[in-house]
Amino acid sequence: MGEEVQNKQVILKDYVTGYPKEFDMYIKTSTIKLQVPQESNAILVKNLYLSCDPVMQFQMRKAEKHLSGYYYFTPGSSINGFGVAKVLDSKNPNFSAGDLVWGTTGWEEYSLIERPNWLYKIHHTDIPLSYYTGILGMPGITAFAGIYEVGSPKKGECVFISAASGAVGQLAGQFAKLLGCYVVGSAGSQEKVDLLKNKLGFDDAFNYKEEPALDAALKRCFPNGIDLYFEQVGGKMLDAVLLNMKIHGRIIICGMISQYNISEPEPLKNIMQVAFKRLSIKGFTHRDHHHLYPKLLETVLPYIREKKIVYVEDIVEGIENGPEALVGLFSGRNFGKQIVAVAHE
Amino acid sequence: MGEEVQNKQVILKDYVTGYPKEFDMYIKTSTIKLQVPQESNAILVKNLYLSCDPVMQFQMRKAEKHLSGYYYFTPGSSINGFGVAKVLDSKNPNFSAGDLVWGTTGWEEYSLIERPNWLYKIHHTDIPLSYYTGILGMPGITAFAGIYEVGSPKKGECVFISAASGAVGQLAGQFAKLLGCYVVGSAGSQEKVDLLKNKLGFDDAFNYKEEPALDAALKRCFPNGIDLYFEQVGGKMLDAVLLNMKIHGRIIICGMISQYNISEPEPLKNIMQVAFKRLSIKGFTHRDHHHLYPKLLETVLPYIREKKIVYVEDIVEGIENGPEALVGLFSGRNFGKQIVAVAHE
Repeated sequence: MGEEVQNKQVILKDYVTGYPKEFDMYIKTSTIKLQVPQESNAILVKNLYLSCDPVMQFQMRKAEKHLSGYYYFTPGSSINGFGVAKVLDSKNPNFSAGDLVWGTTGWEEYSLIERPNWLYKIHHTDIPLSYYTGILGMPGITAFAGIYEVGSPKKGECVFISAASGAVGQLAGQFAKLLGCYVVGSAGSQEKVDLLKNKLGFDDAFNYKEEPALDAALKRCFPNGIDLYFEQVGGKMLDAVLLNMKIHGRIIICGMISQYNISEPEPLKNIMQVAFKRLSIKGFTHRDHHHLYPKLLETVLPYIREKKIVYVEDIVEGIENGPEALVGLFSGRNFGKQIVAVAHE
Repeated sequence: MGEEVQNKQVILKDYVTGYPKEFDMYIKTSTIKLQVPQESNAILVKNLYLSCDPVMQFQMRKAEKHLSGYYYFTPGSSINGFGVAKVLDSKNPNFSAGDLVWGTTGWEEYSLIERPNWLYKIHHTDIPLSYYTGILGMPGITAFAGIYEVGSPKKGECVFISAASGAVGQLAGQFAKLLGCYVVGSAGSQEKVDLLKNKLGFDDAFNYKEEPALDAALKRCFPNGIDLYFEQVGGKMLDAVLLNMKIHGRIIICGMISQYNISEPEPLKNIMQVAFKRLSIKGFTHRDHHHLYPKLLETVLPYIREKKIVYVEDIVEGIENGPEALVGLFSGRNFGKQIVAVAHE
């Protein structure tokens, strides 16, 4: 304890415009003392798993007028995000050396976390620790809130999920199936479609890149229309979905990954359907739903242990491969939840 | 009773594309016997006031794929819509000669209504009868449902209303004011803006046709953002509003009159704000809210009698002037609720 060690970090080179590229980040090796300074409330952690999340692209940009509420990265400093870590030293009354935690940490091997207010302690370690970046972490809260609180599909309802094999979508689909819904997902490769149909229990799935017309694909999968759309992509997909919603259908939106990085967002043509069909559309984010976390653990831990839910991860080894993994997220290169393994305890 | 009289009718010439024009309709004088045939459940009414409503443009078109649920007009027959009428003869147990009613009737001097299921009897006649096409009719239900049930603004909230001097908007704004909200409206002329500010009690108003940028106009009126947007126009206005909503703001949509008749709807660019700001958008129509009508009467009749609510009507005299009045609705020529007076009892 107190020794000085090497600390590989992922540094943001400069503010990013458009999709982040690997060259927007670089690896720097600095040193860090494995001890929290006196007169502080900080903790010092060893990072185990880092989560690649779509929101990080915004944080790499220069603060934008219409994107309030984000924490922005600083060029020359390490980026950060959700992760799983082990406490090595603590001057904070809520944490002790040896604790396992998940929450916001640095993209580096070791992090000094000055205000560890938003970290959760991990109490259930019979589950893979990496799951706390996914099913038991932020994407889990997003999917759980979306299905159990915001969308609340009833048994027999028809649910459509875009980006269905991703960190959130695979959970949202399985939650909806457990509630007795008819669930269809879209994804960007045949391999992902097979995953949805054969391993994750979706009733049907299609590869949006291979469909000549999204409207026709949706009509094929939902001849009587969609009750609930779990929206994560935006653009043409949302436009096609609007035409295929049932009267009084609901659309819940936690992201629009297809739209984030194009200079002019794809225009939406069918918004009038909201009036014609009395649709409701609701934006939501995990940030408004952390009160659900105890209920999530209570519900989901048994599902995991009884193998009623599967969680597919795409883990790359080594922080030096972090930038490539993060960038791959924006072209859909990941197969399931994208994670960077920094260390295995 | 039983005499045969002349009956002027407004006939649809042919299916309409684009905005309806005067020449899409013509006046025909036929004859009608003022008696309900035996073996029927019909009533025969003398029409007093006819309501010009935006939805009628859809009913003039050929049935459209994505516009289900509308009753379409038949070329060669009289158009119909909401109106106020007096029962002259009845074979229906629920109606008697002398009853005043409001609901769907024909655009003609006398109508034989085969299935009078959807007519309301008028019990309060100290109020101008024409109000049953407006504040106490369908637009009243729309505004009442929008404010008291769908949008539910709280005291002190910031409410924006487009098409604010129209049949629904003027009521929605006054209802929101009565709830203690800060209310701003947009309209299409200085005269309408003056009406909103000086007669209807809106806190502020602007002429959307004269604003160089809608975004700037909204920022001027709502420096801290909008809590509730009562949407009736769509297009550029909705796009600008999306940028000016508060976090967790609500948008309620009962129509998008700017969008109905352009071959390609204006694309919406800022739908991503729904995700960023966790907005909710809800489409609604009077049709889902008729259960509120008793509560509406209970609430609104005293407001009218105590002059706490003003209702502005634009009444043209004579059914032969009906087509011009109806067509004027789509260029905003009306000043307040557009009504055609067919007869004064």
